[in-house]
Amino acid sequence: MPLPEFNLYPDFNTVRLSHAYLNVSDLAASKAFYCDTLGLQITDESETHVYLRAMEERGHHCLVLQKSDAPGTVDAVGFKTYDEADLDRAEAWFQAQGRPTQWVIRPYQGRTLLTSDNLGIPLEFYHKMDRLPSIHQKYALYNGVKPLRIDHFNCFSPDVDASVAFYNSMGFRVTEYTEDEDSKRLWAAWMHRKGGVHDMAFTNGTGPRLHHVAFWVPTPLNIIDLLDLMATTGYVDNIERGPGRHGISNAFFLYVLDPDGHRIEIYCSDYQTVDPDLEPIKWDLTDPQRQTLWGAPAPKSWFEHGTRFTDAETRDSDIAASPIIAP
Amino acid sequence: MPLPEFNLYPDFNTVRLSHAYLNVSDLAASKAFYCDTLGLQITDESETHVYLRAMEERGHHCLVLQKSDAPGTVDAVGFKTYDEADLDRAEAWFQAQGRPTQWVIRPYQGRTLLTSDNLGIPLEFYHKMDRLPSIHQKYALYNGVKPLRIDHFNCFSPDVDASVAFYNSMGFRVTEYTEDEDSKRLWAAWMHRKGGVHDMAFTNGTGPRLHHVAFWVPTPLNIIDLLDLMATTGYVDNIERGPGRHGISNAFFLYVLDPDGHRIEIYCSDYQTVDPDLEPIKWDLTDPQRQTLWGAPAPKSWFEHGTRFTDAETRDSDIAASPIIAP
Amino acid sequence: MPLPEFNLYPDFNTVRLSHAYLNVSDLAASKAFYCDTLGLQITDESETHVYLRAMEERGHHCLVLQKSDAPGTVDAVGFKTYDEADLDRAEAWFQAQGRPTQWVIRPYQGRTLLTSDNLGIPLEFYHKMDRLPSIHQKYALYNGVKPLRIDHFNCFSPDVDASVAFYNSMGFRVTEYTEDEDSKRLWAAWMHRKGGVHDMAFTNGTGPRLHHVAFWVPTPLNIIDLLDLMATTGYVDNIERGPGRHGISNAFFLYVLDPDGHRIEIYCSDYQTVDPDLEPIKWDLTDPQRQTLWGAPAPKSWFEHGTRFTDAETRDSDIAASPIIAP
Amino acid sequence: MPLPEFNLYPDFNTVRLSHAYLNVSDLAASKAFYCDTLGLQITDESETHVYLRAMEERGHHCLVLQKSDAPGTVDAVGFKTYDEADLDRAEAWFQAQGRPTQWVIRPYQGRTLLTSDNLGIPLEFYHKMDRLPSIHQKYALYNGVKPLRIDHFNCFSPDVDASVAFYNSMGFRVTEYTEDEDSKRLWAAWMHRKGGVHDMAFTNGTGPRLHHVAFWVPTPLNIIDLLDLMATTGYVDNIERGPGRHGISNAFFLYVLDPDGHRIEIYCSDYQTVDPDLEPIKWDLTDPQRQTLWGAPAPKSWFEHGTRFTDAETRDSDIAASPIIAP
Repeated sequence: MPLPEFNLYPDFNTVRLSHAYLNVSDLAASKAFYCDTLGLQITDESETHVYLRAMEERGHHCLVLQKSDAPGTVDAVGFKTYDEADLDRAEAWFQAQGRPTQWVIRPYQGRTLLTSDNLGIPLEFYHKMDRLPSIHQKYALYNGVKPLRIDHFNCFSPDVDASVAFYNSMGFRVTEYTEDEDSKRLWAAWMHRKGGVHDMAFTNGTGPRLHHVAFWVPTPLNIIDLLDLMATTGYVDNIERGPGRHGISNAFFLYVLDPDGHRIEIYCSDYQTVDPDLEPIKWDLTDPQRQTLWGAPAPKSWFEHGTRFTDAETRDSDIAASPIIAP
Repeated sequence: MPLPEFNLYPDFNTVRLSHAYLNVSDLAASKAFYCDTLGLQITDESETHVYLRAMEERGHHCLVLQKSDAPGTVDAVGFKTYDEADLDRAEAWFQAQGRPTQWVIRPYQGRTLLTSDNLGIPLEFYHKMDRLPSIHQKYALYNGVKPLRIDHFNCFSPDVDASVAFYNSMGFRVTEYTEDEDSKRLWAAWMHRKGGVHDMAFTNGTGPRLHHVAFWVPTPLNIIDLLDLMATTGYVDNIERGPGRHGISNAFFLYVLDPDGHRIEIYCSDYQTVDPDLEPIKWDLTDPQRQTLWGAPAPKSWFEHGTRFTDAETRDSDIAASPIIAP
Repeated sequence: MPLPEFNLYPDFNTVRLSHAYLNVSDLAASKAFYCDTLGLQITDESETHVYLRAMEERGHHCLVLQKSDAPGTVDAVGFKTYDEADLDRAEAWFQAQGRPTQWVIRPYQGRTLLTSDNLGIPLEFYHKMDRLPSIHQKYALYNGVKPLRIDHFNCFSPDVDASVAFYNSMGFRVTEYTEDEDSKRLWAAWMHRKGGVHDMAFTNGTGPRLHHVAFWVPTPLNIIDLLDLMATTGYVDNIERGPGRHGISNAFFLYVLDPDGHRIEIYCSDYQTVDPDLEPIKWDLTDPQRQTLWGAPAPKSWFEHGTRFTDAETRDSDIAASPIIAP
Repeated sequence: MPLPEFNLYPDFNTVRLSHAYLNVSDLAASKAFYCDTLGLQITDESETHVYLRAMEERGHHCLVLQKSDAPGTVDAVGFKTYDEADLDRAEAWFQAQGRPTQWVIRPYQGRTLLTSDNLGIPLEFYHKMDRLPSIHQKYALYNGVKPLRIDHFNCFSPDVDASVAFYNSMGFRVTEYTEDEDSKRLWAAWMHRKGGVHDMAFTNGTGPRLHHVAFWVPTPLNIIDLLDLMATTGYVDNIERGPGRHGISNAFFLYVLDPDGHRIEIYCSDYQTVDPDLEPIKWDLTDPQRQTLWGAPAPKSWFEHGTRFTDAETRDSDIAASPIIAP
């Protein structure tokens, strides 16, 4: 199946990915990880919730930690629309796709549409979120890996072709992809709205499940600092993969696991993708450098472990997975 | 005069700044500077022209060096539109503003509209430019400061309020600005389309003149490498200002002069600005940290020297300039 | 006067510079500067003293802050000998030079010899200092500029030839020097024991006075981090010079002033000098790149301001100083 | 067996490691690797030899590539003495140990003593080597990983206790070591002369064999640059291990293999060890973080592959090796 043609004029305008709701077992342990170790800033907290933002963000939150009886699951991933009216256009579009929609109340957000994609990934869209004073020049607050902003979500999909078609209709554009030469099916795809390599990526596997949430940091040296810090503060077993450079996206990366198994990618150095005629880069499923440009293999857990979305049924992919070649 | 309200739906959609035409006296000397020292890549050259691109760019050129009897002048600055039809919409809009328009032939570009802004800065718009194979992972080609992409233009304007109003109508959004508290007039403004701090900036002064063209590089260490290289290869006098961090934009910067006096900024570490409701950051004209966060003053030349646009009459600003506080 | 021949076998063996005693007016303000901002670690403190070490040091202190009625002065600079017996050899040697010697009690140090050099700079020598557990892999403690170790002292001398001759007799070797071509006299010299460019340097000027104490940091990016931190936490006026690269020593540098005017250099990237036949590098007094390879001039204060040593009379140099060419 | 007491006054004074002779099959292929990729500078070459130095070295060579019928072997490793007379003292000392000695002619070196250590590793000592003009500020020459200087040798030894005793007698001091808690025998040791963590290290295994030669580079980012370069110029399979941080030495590292299988370590960020009372750091053989602080295991080849010394018989260690815990 060829890549769908990029949809220049989708029914509604999504600006960027925005935030995720992660269910956790122990808020104190999660705060130690996300605030003291990664360096995210708390914007509000209660006995059940911690709201976090990264250093250059002025929206209220990019991550919401929720104390839960189902730790290691994800309630939803959120996106910001360009205009208030895009919310209504989104509602109409999702209804036309046969997806459930409802207007929900979310603290610190304006009108919020809760829906789900073709696989059942819970999505929410808002236009307005409380704006906070900028802290990007309050350098005394920088800590940990010095996270600047949320960068993207990556999900397992049992049908990457279908996922790409769905998000392409929403105006997400493929920047890079892996194709299985035999089956002529997509193995993985990276899709963006905001002008980087991706806001959302899909990888073949049992899904839908969240593979990771990524944060952008200034330079590879911040990632080395985080490794040193985690390795000497009791988190050495939470370091899963990296550091390395992805062939796909060209980004310098590190993958770490939070106390409940949510995977976080620390990411920098991808490239600008705003040209609407930017050609997608195709990678061969048999090329190991697409995963790690420098050749080091990823651990098995990285291909298999993901976190489930609340209320989303998962199914296996019908393309056989191989740890050697996937994802 | 207050900042104009951001125009969410301009008449035509500009994706980003794209390229500039710099007139030079000696192509060999300019190539030594731009290719061997800065590290830009030649995509075509003749006895009269050199076309250059940066490492992650796939469009044919971001800089065109032209052998000229008027070295140290600039023929035009170029922008890319989202869609082919945006070119016709742009033509109509510029005509409605009373600006001259013509369709011109430019090598390696599709249909190209030549016009000018309210001050007479020659602007050209295109949608299609020849696309080249990607080289961002051909690391053997990286050289000099490892320039990744063109980032922005900065111009002297004798009436920054008028310049901001004009570009705001075109959908450029102000991210940061300096206001003169006494006159309530804008002293300087940074305006973007592509999701960084700016595609175009204006600073009070005799104009229109180009202050600089900027290139984005991976990290501050690449800028340190360039300083070491220039300092030991005969270019020490071409280092004008830096390295430092701007208060405005928060970027790490260096300013260097090419053999004909064109000023080039090497730039990294600004922030993402895609949120349409991102609040502009206001700086006070009396705050020296807006120029250099670390306090070091800029040299006098930096406030005074610029390069003229071909056929554009300049006039002095009616706000008094002071080397201490400007721009 | 030519450089003296390197003394391969001095009467006593000095391993390295070790520590300095800085008199300050307000211990709390000094702690905020040295600990919270620079990132040195407190190893002991009282109402009158704060002992500090850098991250890779296992000796008890490299800096002693002393509450004093004479803030901005320096009681002594300290050195470590190779062997216990070197202390007695040192006593004999200093007495033979006609210098005063006495054995003094210093907390956390073994037997300590207090003496002074030919200019009257108070020097102390010890062999044993309390050893502390290593913290160089306790990454959670790293802070500020991440100082790794004390690197060198730099002093104004009214007679650099005489200073060099004196320290050369002690086995300090010149690695780089500036000569006044007209007078054939040394303008400045860098002398080492420990295998870097210097443990001690002398610069022509009213002296003896301490010009600065330097700390070694991992990379230039740590210096950029410190600049961002100081610029946004009330220390912008304490940034005196830099960042830049010295021609002499090739080091990347920054000079900052503590709350009492003691000058601290943050320093990295010089080179290994252990070869006993390493040729000294000569710089011309008229070459501005010896000071800053990249060409930026140093501020006037940097040539004039120093801190006095307790009980050491100063005198002016008989070589005329010029802010343009010195030191 | 406890660590031997550090020998403060050895019979002769070795300044530092200096150079190695590597036998290769194809000088052109080796030059492509060492010069074009790593960035070492050629100081002389013929049809049979290539002499190389790193950027801050002023001695003529740190590596000699020799065209050979026995590629992948090592003729000798070289050391520099403090004084000319140390060569004669060394001759006497090695003879007293029952080791063979001879005076050999080596191009670009003064009087050179060829001998061997207790295991048969061929060692050569010299005091004078041709001195070349400095190039550390000729930044246009910097290339590849920007190697600054040779840092250390690392060898497999079938009896690390015996190797440590031998080099301790020569005045090499242990900075870090791994002990097998069960057998109370040394598993590995790092020993220095020049003031870093090591000039020579020994690891339990079939030996004597050279494990690697290491080069010092400015920052971890240079290592990342080398990885990107090797991964995209046909050397991806020559990347063996890293990047990472060693627990032992705290250094940031990368291991690569040259075209004949000689292993080269790229290394930075260890610490200063000049204090004669610096306490050796002990690591437990069961602690995986001693190898990689961040927890990633080394590949099997790294524990097994080494290069033989010409004419040196190897024997197996009598301590059982385990890929999990060694070395």
